[in-house]
Amino acid sequence: MSEMILVREPALEAATFAALREGGADERSAGAATRAMMHASRIGVDSHGVRLTAHYVKALQGSRINGAPNMEVRRTAASSAVLDADDGLGHAAAYEGMKLACAMAKDTGVAAVGILRSSHYGAGGAYALAGAEEGMISLSMTQSDAVVALHGGAERFHGTNPIAVGAPVPGERPWLLDMATSSIPFNRVLLYRTLGKTLSDGVAADASGQPTTDPNAADMLMPLGGVDFGFKGAGLAGLVTLFSSILTGSTLDHLVIRMAETDDFQTPRNLGHFCLAIDPDRFVGRQFYETAIMRYLVDLRSSVARTGETVMAPGDREWAVEQERQRTGIPVDPETARFLRV
Amino acid sequence: MSEMILVREPALEAATFAALREGGADERSAGAATRAMMHASRIGVDSHGVRLTAHYVKALQGSRINGAPNMEVRRTAASSAVLDADDGLGHAAAYEGMKLACAMAKDTGVAAVGILRSSHYGAGGAYALAGAEEGMISLSMTQSDAVVALHGGAERFHGTNPIAVGAPVPGERPWLLDMATSSIPFNRVLLYRTLGKTLSDGVAADASGQPTTDPNAADMLMPLGGVDFGFKGAGLAGLVTLFSSILTGSTLDHLVIRMAETDDFQTPRNLGHFCLAIDPDRFVGRQFYETAIMRYLVDLRSSVARTGETVMAPGDREWAVEQERQRTGIPVDPETARFLRV
Repeated sequence: MSEMILVREPALEAATFAALREGGADERSAGAATRAMMHASRIGVDSHGVRLTAHYVKALQGSRINGAPNMEVRRTAASSAVLDADDGLGHAAAYEGMKLACAMAKDTGVAAVGILRSSHYGAGGAYALAGAEEGMISLSMTQSDAVVALHGGAERFHGTNPIAVGAPVPGERPWLLDMATSSIPFNRVLLYRTLGKTLSDGVAADASGQPTTDPNAADMLMPLGGVDFGFKGAGLAGLVTLFSSILTGSTLDHLVIRMAETDDFQTPRNLGHFCLAIDPDRFVGRQFYETAIMRYLVDLRSSVARTGETVMAPGDREWAVEQERQRTGIPVDPETARFLRV
Repeated sequence: MSEMILVREPALEAATFAALREGGADERSAGAATRAMMHASRIGVDSHGVRLTAHYVKALQGSRINGAPNMEVRRTAASSAVLDADDGLGHAAAYEGMKLACAMAKDTGVAAVGILRSSHYGAGGAYALAGAEEGMISLSMTQSDAVVALHGGAERFHGTNPIAVGAPVPGERPWLLDMATSSIPFNRVLLYRTLGKTLSDGVAADASGQPTTDPNAADMLMPLGGVDFGFKGAGLAGLVTLFSSILTGSTLDHLVIRMAETDDFQTPRNLGHFCLAIDPDRFVGRQFYETAIMRYLVDLRSSVARTGETVMAPGDREWAVEQERQRTGIPVDPETARFLRV
């Protein structure tokens, strides 16, 4: 951590955008990817922050990702649409999908957009946040390449398949859940290898599917719930595959070209995402909704914690980091800082 | 288990329906509750099966539940509606809500119904199944009375708040996920007390919020994910509260009158549910959807398992129990058998 370089938000944002433009992304694609990565970097989800810029540039230059996509939206009914992302950066497709879902939901109460022929979209919370900022309860899901075993399984079958949900809260940042359906991301295994640390029980397995806490032996992740209750995490991962891949027509997780552990940066990956927007105005009504979510959060935050612990709502920790980083700047690892020339 | 009485499905169904009618439920309410409980009893989810009949009759007779509700549906937009369940049995409201969501989604692609002033609805999978049988990808959620701590919390804050999702599969029973967002239900704690068994790590806590494996010390459940990753289960429980309570205008989990540990069987509990239906015809299209889900399930079921384990899709275990019980009859505990006179 001592090697981290603190960079002010505007400078980091400009450098990220410029690197993507230089890498071959058009203005809209570069803008969307920058916005999503800056969201993650601001709130402390650095694995999905600006450090991904170099990866995206490699994928753009290898032609895996189309820098100037011609996204096509097909409205299929009053509350549904399919978005063909033309192999562009997933961020642009996901923001566009959420925007459309919100616009449709304003008319019809609820709406969803399925996205196919897309690519890695970073942190799902970026799009849930965008929906919440439109006043909607919003959901974003994406499949990813397989790195998580089934419950009782001995091979990689599902992606870490996150679920992100946002809900507007009057006068403060949204309630924002953004969680993988595995306990940890695979890059935590890699990090623990370099740190020589032991993994938690029931989060990873060796090549034969046996649970292991040794990061060097770990070959795949286990689903949320671990040895005894991993059927729940596996079910949730399957739910994300159902919505973001099976329903959209993208490639299934276990058949998707790997994001990084591959030499193939030429072939598009055909990833799928799903987004949903719900207008509280068409359910309990705005005023009652606002009263209820404020009451819920007041009660949650003041509820009794275990000695030495704090209770938090989804997003509370992240919004605190955002405030802190506004003050201090955003820590960037040396390799990324060199790449971005910040 | 040796005391269990095996009862044929038609006889058990008739006895359950008759007991609810005698208890004061009108034909529609009794029919819906019977259908939902029989679903659970058939697939082996006995905690939500016909053993609940006695509880519902007690609530009907105490006037907590209205046996002859006048449910009111308010269509709020093309894809949204609110259903006021008039304090009736939750099963009737949940089936009605799912039916309406499916009908709207056939027109508009996606639709949702929020339900308030309802009561305990049993197993959410019953309604997800009903939606899948209409050809829809369907989701049902319900809040319940608080028995689950927050992550790091030392009091009951959320219900076990299940998420149920169904998806049609050509030529076989649906993909069907029905999971609480805690690792275990509280009745498992009670069962382990009588059996003198030790709980799994990280599923329950004592009155001060300290994790415990002693069922006699357990005072509350911990969210899915346990000591290290319970923030994920707590986030999912909050998600269910958001959709089924905050969005519908029902009472928040921690303010809901307890289901059983109370003398108050007079006051209605104002529980909320949420249901969503998505028409695959309006996304990838029926034929591609069917091909994709079949391919997914074939690959899942034939993927490599850890030695001694089997990999399964959500519902696989339950549909196997259903087949077995069709052959043998449904096991009913002696108390319930006496109550139902079977």
